[in-house]
Amino acid sequence: MTRERILDAAIDLMAEAGMAPLTVADVASRAGVTTRTIYRHFETREGLIEAVWPRMQARVRSRGFPRTADEIIATPEYLFPQFDEHANLVRASAFSDAGLEVRLRANEERTAAAMACVADALPGLPADVARRRAAVLQLLDSAYCWAVLRDFWGFDGAEAGRAASEAIAILLGRNAPESQGEQP
Amino acid sequence: MTRERILDAAIDLMAEAGMAPLTVADVASRAGVTTRTIYRHFETREGLIEAVWPRMQARVRSRGFPRTADEIIATPEYLFPQFDEHANLVRASAFSDAGLEVRLRANEERTAAAMACVADALPGLPADVARRRAAVLQLLDSAYCWAVLRDFWGFDGAEAGRAASEAIAILLGRNAPESQGEQP
Repeated sequence: MTRERILDAAIDLMAEAGMAPLTVADVASRAGVTTRTIYRHFETREGLIEAVWPRMQARVRSRGFPRTADEIIATPEYLFPQFDEHANLVRASAFSDAGLEVRLRANEERTAAAMACVADALPGLPADVARRRAAVLQLLDSAYCWAVLRDFWGFDGAEAGRAASEAIAILLGRNAPESQGEQP
Repeated sequence: MTRERILDAAIDLMAEAGMAPLTVADVASRAGVTTRTIYRHFETREGLIEAVWPRMQARVRSRGFPRTADEIIATPEYLFPQFDEHANLVRASAFSDAGLEVRLRANEERTAAAMACVADALPGLPADVARRRAAVLQLLDSAYCWAVLRDFWGFDGAEAGRAASEAIAILLGRNAPESQGEQP
């Protein structure tokens, strides 16, 4: 019984752990300005959060969301090696509550772009199938894919990017699953 | 300049945020036992961490890692709806440092199982291609996939599971990308 109680306590602790969201006070203190200065520049906390994502994308030299099949196939091979150079930031931005909040500010554009990639390659798919396919492509094109292939498979950004790009090509009908994943 | 300084402060704060790993003292306190009792049951902190994963899998009624093509294709549709019922736990276990540590204890079995699934469906793939494919399948079969499709696409577990299962089938040559993802 005690053994189970201990394991359940560990699991409960894990389930309750949450990461603090970004507060204006913390950002002000870190930047060495007053919160009043922050509100002068961004008006609201939401405005600040919204402005973080483009700045973060610029740091890792992201080109924005891919909108065609060719672009999304090429993105992981280009982007994941950049993630290696900013590993802590990319990981925290993917896995923290604050990072998720920042990411979601660009979500309409993100999902529309992924849908456009699927429509570009597979225009005949039924709408619900296309949406599910787009969701998987966006996952493969994301920091989450880079992080999982790094943590569980030991891949560097180049290898992870290649794995993701190969899979995206297959899911868009550009290669057979039996092929080596080379693009035509 | 101030604007950029504020945004960089927000990004730096995010990059530094880490989740505390699971400590034996915290687990003891939560379970209402002494650390000595924990060490009597698990010998080391590592032993405790190792024992958490099977217990967590049992909570979400996971069947262990799939080892054939049919099994891995079926897994997300079966598993992701269970994740919905334990959303906080699954999310924390996927995204926290403590959760990652627990997951990695089962990693040899996890990666070997994914490789077996690829060998089952596509025995002729070159070794490096097979390894990259297995890594992508494991991502699609994981809590990370469930979480991303939920957060960014608003899918419930059933829809996310269907999206993942369809993609896995295509990546294993069981369906054409143009198909509706129905299994043969």
